[in-house]
Amino acid sequence: SKYAYVRNYELPDPLLPGCFLICRLDGHSFHRFSEEHGFTKPNDERALKLMDHAAMDVMTEYKDIVLAFGESDEFSFLLRRSTNLYNRRQAKILTTLTSYFTSCYVFHWSKYFPDTSMRYPPSFDGRIVLYPDERSVRDYFSWRQADTHINNLYNTAFWALVKQGGKTTSEAHATLRGTVSAMKQEILFQRFNINYNDISPRFKKGSVLVRVIPSERSTGEKKKRARTRTEVLHCDIIGDEFWMARSFILAG
Amino acid sequence: SKYAYVRNYELPDPLLPGCFLICRLDGHSFHRFSEEHGFTKPNDERALKLMDHAAMDVMTEYKDIVLAFGESDEFSFLLRRSTNLYNRRQAKILTTLTSYFTSCYVFHWSKYFPDTSMRYPPSFDGRIVLYPDERSVRDYFSWRQADTHINNLYNTAFWALVKQGGKTTSEAHATLRGTVSAMKQEILFQRFNINYNDISPRFKKGSVLVRVIPSERSTGEKKKRARTRTEVLHCDIIGDEFWMARSFILAG
Amino acid sequence: SKYAYVRNYELPDPLLPGCFLICRLDGHSFHRFSEEHGFTKPNDERALKLMDHAAMDVMTEYKDIVLAFGESDEFSFLLRRSTNLYNRRQAKILTTLTSYFTSCYVFHWSKYFPDTSMRYPPSFDGRIVLYPDERSVRDYFSWRQADTHINNLYNTAFWALVKQGGKTTSEAHATLRGTVSAMKQEILFQRFNINYNDISPRFKKGSVLVRVIPSERSTGEKKKRARTRTEVLHCDIIGDEFWMARSFILAG
Amino acid sequence: SKYAYVRNYELPDPLLPGCFLICRLDGHSFHRFSEEHGFTKPNDERALKLMDHAAMDVMTEYKDIVLAFGESDEFSFLLRRSTNLYNRRQAKILTTLTSYFTSCYVFHWSKYFPDTSMRYPPSFDGRIVLYPDERSVRDYFSWRQADTHINNLYNTAFWALVKQGGKTTSEAHATLRGTVSAMKQEILFQRFNINYNDISPRFKKGSVLVRVIPSERSTGEKKKRARTRTEVLHCDIIGDEFWMARSFILAG
Ligand SMILES: Nc1nc2c(ncn2[C@H]2C[C@H](O)[C@@H](COP(=O)(O)OP(=O)(O)OP(=O)(O)O)O2)c(=O)[nH]1
Ligand SMILES: Nc1nc2c(ncn2[C@H]2C[C@H](O)[C@@H](COP(=O)(O)OP(=O)(O)OP(=O)(O)O)O2)c(=O)[nH]1
Ligand SMILES: Nc1nc2c(ncn2[C@H]2C[C@H](O)[C@@H](COP(=O)(O)OP(=O)(O)OP(=O)(O)O)O2)c(=O)[nH]1
Ligand SMILES: Nc1nc2c(ncn2[C@H]2C[C@H](O)[C@@H](COP(=O)(O)OP(=O)(O)OP(=O)(O)O)O2)c(=O)[nH]1
Ligand SMILES: O=P(O)(O)OP(=O)(O)OP(=O)(O)O
Ligand SMILES: O=P(O)(O)OP(=O)(O)OP(=O)(O)O
Ligand SMILES: O=P(O)(O)OP(=O)(O)OP(=O)(O)O
Ligand SMILES: O=P(O)(O)OP(=O)(O)OP(=O)(O)O
Ligand SMILES: [Mg+2]
Ligand SMILES: [Mg+2]
Ligand SMILES: [Mg+2]
Ligand SMILES: [Mg+2]
Ligand SMILES: [Mg+2]
Ligand SMILES: [Mg+2]
Ligand SMILES: [Mg+2]
Ligand SMILES: [Mg+2]
Ligand SMILES: [Mg+2]
Ligand SMILES: [Mg+2]
Ligand SMILES: [Mg+2]
Ligand SMILES: [Mg+2]
Repeated sequence: SKYAYVRNYELPDPLLPGCFLICRLDGHSFHRFSEEHGFTKPNDERALKLMDHAAMDVMTEYKDIVLAFGESDEFSFLLRRSTNLYNRRQAKILTTLTSYFTSCYVFHWSKYFPDTSMRYPPSFDGRIVLYPDERSVRDYFSWRQADTHINNLYNTAFWALVKQGGKTTSEAHATLRGTVSAMKQEILFQRFNINYNDISPRFKKGSVLVRVIPSERSTGEKKKRARTRTEVLHCDIIGDEFWMARSFILAG
Repeated sequence: SKYAYVRNYELPDPLLPGCFLICRLDGHSFHRFSEEHGFTKPNDERALKLMDHAAMDVMTEYKDIVLAFGESDEFSFLLRRSTNLYNRRQAKILTTLTSYFTSCYVFHWSKYFPDTSMRYPPSFDGRIVLYPDERSVRDYFSWRQADTHINNLYNTAFWALVKQGGKTTSEAHATLRGTVSAMKQEILFQRFNINYNDISPRFKKGSVLVRVIPSERSTGEKKKRARTRTEVLHCDIIGDEFWMARSFILAG
Repeated sequence: SKYAYVRNYELPDPLLPGCFLICRLDGHSFHRFSEEHGFTKPNDERALKLMDHAAMDVMTEYKDIVLAFGESDEFSFLLRRSTNLYNRRQAKILTTLTSYFTSCYVFHWSKYFPDTSMRYPPSFDGRIVLYPDERSVRDYFSWRQADTHINNLYNTAFWALVKQGGKTTSEAHATLRGTVSAMKQEILFQRFNINYNDISPRFKKGSVLVRVIPSERSTGEKKKRARTRTEVLHCDIIGDEFWMARSFILAG
Repeated sequence: SKYAYVRNYELPDPLLPGCFLICRLDGHSFHRFSEEHGFTKPNDERALKLMDHAAMDVMTEYKDIVLAFGESDEFSFLLRRSTNLYNRRQAKILTTLTSYFTSCYVFHWSKYFPDTSMRYPPSFDGRIVLYPDERSVRDYFSWRQADTHINNLYNTAFWALVKQGGKTTSEAHATLRGTVSAMKQEILFQRFNINYNDISPRFKKGSVLVRVIPSERSTGEKKKRARTRTEVLHCDIIGDEFWMARSFILAG
């Protein structure tokens, strides 16, 4: 039609080849959403598992995602450097991942919150960041996992002071102001007999979703199935071990 | 932390000031999704109303959207030229709108499909296109509504031939190949006694969501409430009438 | 060759259709360049005319430039909204204009500075900014011309104080600190008997290069030649008069 | 002033960190420029040396350029991966390099063409391409040098056929159509007794400008001076040798 010229205003938005893509999603105003739905503090296992489930679905659908990391209301997805998903069109990749994750989150809600009906539709923002080399990808995930640890230690101490210590929230903040990690762990142990090491790895390390490495011995169809299966771990991803055992992640 | 430098790879993505923003969402693989959920052919009123509901929620949440137009598995949202939503950050606007629309679609599903449970989570792609002037915005919406008409006429004739005329789908395609609008209307009328004019405006014109114009006489709180209420129309938006009655849409 | 894949890293960079393009060039470190070549202070007519000459050549070469404005070490070029120069490829337009202007500047140097040989090659930075409507284009040029006036008044007063008033540069700065326009004109008049109105329009208004409007009576070849001739003015471009007499500038 | 808001239309354009930048300049319509100025065919040593001189000046001015490669009417500049030149602002880097190169070309013209006055100002287009890793940078330069070889062999054979062989240009084209490298070398040798190996390395390999490696023994000021001196080579840059001897190029 004579109106079709308006399509010319749609400009191409290809992402630079040869770079890793990381897509990070983050819950929009989850401060409010978590309050309204009575999320357990500091960590709600149901909420976190729901996030993992949605992320798992995303990885099942988009095979070029080789790794995902989640914590709190956010998830990061790593697409392999050479991905040609949607011809690397930025908005297309970004919106389909964001949309599908959101959809899965709402879709699976009742499995994790059978007794809490969803009061309003949650949403997520998304962004894609390009990383040109292995080092910066590694550092990206270290950044997120270090963040998980810092936040979790703070929140764990904070809510122990409030819930078990009977402090007001302002008192708890004041108590923790300026403390380093070791001091927070000390407070937890001395005052509440909580050994931080015993806290669930899910809370301390976040969730790591990664394709399963087929065992040496499995072959053919079996191997293929393994490669496309994804597992949920709560392990360290800052050190080298995780990556050395999975060189395929940064391979190509 | 020493990893925080990775944030520097996040680049700014502000949208040019002074331009209208149109965000168009489109169902991802809705050919399959509509099949799997038994959408009525050619038009499923439940599905279309669900789309409208989700779009309505989006407009309620994002006040800078002044107009929306929906058809089939897609919706277009017009943000006013001077919007400062998220400082006009492209990915932020694009993903929150896409995500929230998706969320609402899944959230409200059972209201429109009480007897059809959702078999898998649907998703939508999204894009933002800038239009610098009123003319191109008008032409954009004309483009979409002309498309609605063309598709609907074709589909209506096609499914009449198949469902009522007993043709195979290839025969129906063959029958319609090369026909102009008038001929399709003729086929509908002659063979199936369907007067295209009598077809539901929703199917012929799509859905137009627009903020209500406060009446001359209403004042204060009443006026404000009106301005923030949104109505769903199925009217022509190609001619001038619609726009002249609502100069606020293109105003600023 | 097997290396040709590296071309895929060249990404498209089309500029949004329907917008005016303004390309602004600015001399790189002309503080130093003007010193080293003994430019007259505050305004060197030779230097300004050389800038005009280079800009004129650019307009002769690139017919889609409908207006140019120059002051000091900078020049702004307006390309018509519907230009399809190099398919609106950003880097291509930007670099060819910048390069050609630079080349002309060096090429014509000796015509304006017959007694001053160029000591080192000057360079210019360039940028393209999109403006979606007539208002913002008008305001852009008003911004530059207002800047010309402000700077020129300041510099004129400043150098009068230094050269004729025997002040040091710091004293001159101190004298002018906090003064409004009227006060600066007053200083010029009272202390140095300079009537600011008598200052050359070139210095007060900058240089306006614009295609000649063919007279009503001229026809055919004559009209065409006129349309492609460009004149240099030093007139006001903030008010409406200039633009009303030349509606073609903003037309399309 | 009240017009200053137009600056908000200037959008940021930072280049992705961690990537190598390659800026390639290419003479605008040098087919015509070379004709008009009587460049020797197939290679004009004066013209090529002038290009080298301009490129050398650019490297002297912009220390973050670690390597440059020139052939015909083009030059490519490699900026180190971690460069922070102009805060990695794309247009700023691109235009200053393009402009300065152009300026130097015109400025030095008469040194290389003492008997040919410049008839009109030449210009260059420019582009910046990002390369995320060493491999793609190496391949980029291999691409250009392979191109040099292919073009030079073709042009050498072509002009031998025309100038010495008395062929028309169409006959020469026809003779070479479909021939591989070895056949062209054969033609040169059999018909014109030209051993391609004896052709000037400048023509076969192009120009490689690279910072001098300070000798092991030199220290302090001497070392520093060496590091900032640049040499012009006409050597192979496709193989590993060149790069292994200069690991600093790709280092950081
Ligand atoms: N109680 C509880 N709250 C959680 C849990 N996970 C996340 N949240 C809440 C706590 C934080 O207020 C919020 C995540 O922080 P953000 O920085 O993402 O802020 P928020 O989503 O409110 O704002 P945003 O739209 O992302 O700028 O989500 C959880 O497991 N339990
Ligand atoms: N039966 C039925 N199908 C519908 C209705 N609305 C949309 N659809 C289906 C028909 C089309 O196959 C599809 C919309 O066409 P699209 O061009 O968006 O294709 P699709 O979503 O399959 O692929 P895409 O991922 O958008 O490229 O949705 C409806 O009301 N009834
Ligand atoms: N004496 C004299 N100097 C002039 C004339 N026109 C321009 N200039 C000098 C004065 C300023 O220092 C300089 C223009 O100011 P800019 O803000 O463009 O600074 P500059 O070019 O030094 O630095 P830049 O590389 O643009 O950031 O050029 C003139 O007619 N006479
Ligand atoms: N005779 C002669 N011509 C040369 C020499 N170096 C370059 N040229 C000419 C031959 C080619 O026509 C031209 C370079 O080819 P390009 O592909 O860059 O084309 P041109 O610059 O004409 O167009 P462009 O504006 O780059 O698209 O420059 C030389 O050493 N001798
Ligand atoms: O944690 P982030 O990256 O979401 O950082 P932020 O402070 O929320 O900023 P924004 O989401 O606005 O980029
Ligand atoms: O109708 P559109 O705009 O979605 O057009 P398309 O042919 O689906 O193309 P794409 O979604 O890949 O831009
Ligand atoms: O006058 P401009 O626009 O050149 O402004 P600037 O302060 O020189 O900044 P820039 O670094 O953008 O040239
Ligand atoms: O050789 P290049 O890269 O200049 O390629 P081209 O065919 O001239 O294309 P353009 O300069 O228009 O990108
Ligand atoms: Mg955020
Ligand atoms: Mg959040
Ligand atoms: Mg968060
Ligand atoms: Mg599509
Ligand atoms: Mg679709
Ligand atoms: Mg569709
Ligand atoms: Mg500047
Ligand atoms: Mg300057
Ligand atoms: Mg300046
Ligand atoms: Mg080219
Ligand atoms: Mg060329
Ligand atoms: Mg060339």
